[in-house]
Amino acid sequence: MRDPLDVIIIGAGTAGLSALREMQKRTQHVVVINDGPWGTMCARVGCMPSKALIAAANAFHARHTFGELGISGSSGLAIDLPAVLRRVRALRDTFVAGNLDVTNALGDRAISGRARLLGGGRVSVNGTELRARRIIIATGSTPYVPKPWLALGERLLTTDSLFEQQTLPNRIAVVGQGALGVELALALRRLGLDVVAMGDGLTVAGLTDPEVNAVAISMLRHELPVALGDKAELSAEGAGVRVRAGRSDAVVDRVLVALGRRPNIEGLGLDALGVALDAAGVPRVDPRTLQVGDLPVFLVGDANGRSAVLHEASDDGHIAGLNASAERATFWKRRTPLAIVFSEPTVAMIGKKFVELDTSQVLIGEAHFEHQGRARIAQRDSGLLRVYADRQSGLLLGAELCAPAGEHLAHLLALAIERSLTVSDLLRMPYYHPVFEEGLRTALRQLSERLPTSQDSDLARCER
Amino acid sequence: MRDPLDVIIIGAGTAGLSALREMQKRTQHVVVINDGPWGTMCARVGCMPSKALIAAANAFHARHTFGELGISGSSGLAIDLPAVLRRVRALRDTFVAGNLDVTNALGDRAISGRARLLGGGRVSVNGTELRARRIIIATGSTPYVPKPWLALGERLLTTDSLFEQQTLPNRIAVVGQGALGVELALALRRLGLDVVAMGDGLTVAGLTDPEVNAVAISMLRHELPVALGDKAELSAEGAGVRVRAGRSDAVVDRVLVALGRRPNIEGLGLDALGVALDAAGVPRVDPRTLQVGDLPVFLVGDANGRSAVLHEASDDGHIAGLNASAERATFWKRRTPLAIVFSEPTVAMIGKKFVELDTSQVLIGEAHFEHQGRARIAQRDSGLLRVYADRQSGLLLGAELCAPAGEHLAHLLALAIERSLTVSDLLRMPYYHPVFEEGLRTALRQLSERLPTSQDSDLARCER
Repeated sequence: MRDPLDVIIIGAGTAGLSALREMQKRTQHVVVINDGPWGTMCARVGCMPSKALIAAANAFHARHTFGELGISGSSGLAIDLPAVLRRVRALRDTFVAGNLDVTNALGDRAISGRARLLGGGRVSVNGTELRARRIIIATGSTPYVPKPWLALGERLLTTDSLFEQQTLPNRIAVVGQGALGVELALALRRLGLDVVAMGDGLTVAGLTDPEVNAVAISMLRHELPVALGDKAELSAEGAGVRVRAGRSDAVVDRVLVALGRRPNIEGLGLDALGVALDAAGVPRVDPRTLQVGDLPVFLVGDANGRSAVLHEASDDGHIAGLNASAERATFWKRRTPLAIVFSEPTVAMIGKKFVELDTSQVLIGEAHFEHQGRARIAQRDSGLLRVYADRQSGLLLGAELCAPAGEHLAHLLALAIERSLTVSDLLRMPYYHPVFEEGLRTALRQLSERLPTSQDSDLARCER
Repeated sequence: MRDPLDVIIIGAGTAGLSALREMQKRTQHVVVINDGPWGTMCARVGCMPSKALIAAANAFHARHTFGELGISGSSGLAIDLPAVLRRVRALRDTFVAGNLDVTNALGDRAISGRARLLGGGRVSVNGTELRARRIIIATGSTPYVPKPWLALGERLLTTDSLFEQQTLPNRIAVVGQGALGVELALALRRLGLDVVAMGDGLTVAGLTDPEVNAVAISMLRHELPVALGDKAELSAEGAGVRVRAGRSDAVVDRVLVALGRRPNIEGLGLDALGVALDAAGVPRVDPRTLQVGDLPVFLVGDANGRSAVLHEASDDGHIAGLNASAERATFWKRRTPLAIVFSEPTVAMIGKKFVELDTSQVLIGEAHFEHQGRARIAQRDSGLLRVYADRQSGLLLGAELCAPAGEHLAHLLALAIERSLTVSDLLRMPYYHPVFEEGLRTALRQLSERLPTSQDSDLARCER
C-alpha cells in the first residue's frame, strides 16, 4: 500500500460504500476499515429485514378484508413465525452478500478493526498506523438503549437482535414511536402478537402536523394499545418485563427498544481533530460539503447525526467521495427532504414539515381518503394528506400524510417541491382514474380555490 | 325553460357532466338529455366495477405468495363468485348514486330520451323540439360486438352485462387484448375461472414497445393461455361457444367481448351539421377547443373517438363547457398522454409511445424488476420499465412499462414529462429506500451515462 494513501474510509456502511464507489472512479489507493460485521446497517438490520417482516405482516393482515371481498376460509390462515423470521434472514443474507462483494474485492485494503483518529491524516487500527491525504468517517450509528435497561439482557430487543430471533414470544412492548417503532409495532401486531406501544412524545412516526398525527395515532390504536406522553420504565418481572408509562402498565415477554440511534463515535478520537464538538461529541459539518471545518476529513452518514435515511447517507458518501478527490470542496445542493414510514396507511413527510412553516404565510389543502373511489374499492379508505403552499404564490412547500399509497404520493410531491412547482403547475399533470393520486388532486384543488391566482381551469391556455 | 336555452348537453356521462359543472357556474339555462340509464359509463360499467372485480381477484391471487411469506392454510381459501359480484354492484350503486345526485338536481331540465340534431341549434327529443345557443354532444360509446356474434345471445358478455351476472361459469374466453381485455382476462383467471384470452393483434394492453409488450405477454401467459395474431371466430356449440383463433380452439361457456368501444352516433343526425364526417361518421374536432368546425357545437368524450380514458373525457367536457360559455373558443393545452392498465404488474404508457418515436434521435433506459430489493421482498419481482429520452438534450419524451407499482411510476413520469424535465432533472429528486421508484432511477442513470451531458453526480452544484 502506498504511503500516504489517498483516502481512508472508516466504516463500510451505506455512506462509506458510497464514498468508496466515488473514490474508486479515480484511485485504488483506498483503505476501508470496518468495526464489527461487514454489510450495511440497511441490509443487515435496517430497511431490508424490516420491510421483509412488514411484507409478511401485511399479507397476513389482509385476511381481514377477505370476507367483504367474497373470499372465505380466512380463519384457517395461520402465521408461522419461525418461517417468517427465516425468510427475513434469507433475504437479508442476499442483500448483505451484495454489500460484501464490494468490500471482498478490496482484498487487504478492507481491514476489520476499530479505527482511532490520531490527527493529521493518521489513523491507528489493530496496532498499526495508516496515513492518508483524506479521511472519510462513516462509522454509522447504534440503537440507543438507556444504560439501566441493559440489565434486562435478552429480554430487551433492538433491531440488532430482533431479526436474529428464532421465534417471537406472544407479548411484546415496543418502546419508542418514531418511524421504526411505529413500523415494527404495527408489523408485530399484524403478525398476531399481543403488542403494546409506548412513546414518550405526543407525536408518532416523526409527524409534526397535529391533524395528520391524530389520524396516524387513530390508525395505530385501531389495531393496538398505544400509550403516549410518558417515559417508559422497565423492570424485570418473573421471566418477563414490567413496562410502565403513565397510567399504562403491562407485563410482557420482550421489549423492543426503538428510541432512535446514536452516532458511533466512542473511542474514535474525534477530539484529536482539534475542532469544536457538539453536546453529542460530534463536529458540525456543512451538509453541502460534509467537510469537517477546513480539515481533510469528512463526516458522513448516520455518524454525523444529521439524517438517518439511506438516500441521504448515500448522498453524503457520494459528496464526500467527490470532495475528497478534489483539491477544494465543492458545495452540492441537497435533495428535498423526504421521510417515509412503512406503516399502512403509509406515513410520509415531504419538504418543509408543518412545524417548520410560518403558518401565517401558508395555505393548507387536505384530502381525506374515506370517500375516495379507489381507496374504497381497495378497502384502504382511511387516511389524511395535508399539503402546504405559500399563500401568495401557491409555491408548494411541503406535505405530511398518513394515507394509502402514501410512499408514492410522497415521491410525486417530492418531485414537485424539488422543481419549485406551484399548486397550479402540479394540477396540470394528468391524474388517471381511479387512482390514489386523485386524493392529491383534491388537496391541490382546495388550495387552488383559495389562492389569489385562482383560475377557472386546471388547464393552461395555449396559442392556436 | 327560456327559449333558446344557453346550452343543450346530449349525454350525462363523464364528459357531459363535466361540461354541465362548468356551465352551471354561469347559467341555469341548461338542459341535459340522456338516452338509456343515467349514471356515467365509468361508474356503471367501466372503471369502477372493473376495479372492484380486480381488487377481489388480486386479493384471492395473493394466496400464492403466502407459503413463502410464512402463512399457512391458504388452500382453505375459496372465492364466492356471487358475493364478489354482489360487492361489485353494491359499490357501483354508490358510485352511480353520486352521479345521479347531480342530474336529479336538474329536475325537468334532465330529460330521458334520444336526442336528434336538427341543425341550427335545434334538437328534437321525445317529439319535442328544443333550441339552444350551444350544443354539447357527449353521447359516449358502446362496446363493439361484430354483428354475426349477436346471435349467440346471452352466451356473449360485454362490460355492459358482465357485472350484472349473478355468478360466472367456469369456462370463459376473453376476445380482445386491449386494456380492458387484459384487465378482465387476468381478473377472471385470478378469480379461479378457466380463462382463454385471444387478441387479433400481436401486442397487448395497448403497448407499442416490443420489449415491454413481450414482458406483458409473458406475464399473462404465466397465468393463462393467450392466443395472439388471429381473428377469433365464434360459433354456438351445445350450450356453449366454440372459439377459434389460428391454432387455438376452445369450447367455453361464455365469451367476453373486449374489442373496444364505438362512439354512440347512430340516429344522432350528425349529418345535419353540414360538416365533413370521417369514415366512422364522426366530425373531426380540435382537442384544444372541442368545437365542431366553427359551429356552436362541441363534441366531447368517447363520442369524438379521440381517447377513451376518463380524465381526458372530463377535460373534454370542461373545455367544451368553458368554450360554450364564451363568445369565442379558447385553445387549451391538453395534458401529457397517460394510459394505465390495471393488471398486476401494471401496464402504463406515458407521453410519447415507442411507436411514435424517431428512434434514431432517442436513447432508451430500462429497468428490470427481477433484482430490485423492494420488489423481491414484496414478491412482485418481475417487470420492465423503458424510458425514452432525446439523445442530445436528455429531455424525457415518454415511457412504457409493465412493472410493479406501475400506476405510481406512471404518474411520476407524467409529471416529469408534463414539466419538460430532462433525465438529470428527474435524477435530482429524492428516491427513498427501499421503493419501487428506485427502479425508475436505475433506468434514468442508464440514460444519464449515455448522454453527452453526462455528469459525475446526480446532484447539482450550488453556490456557497
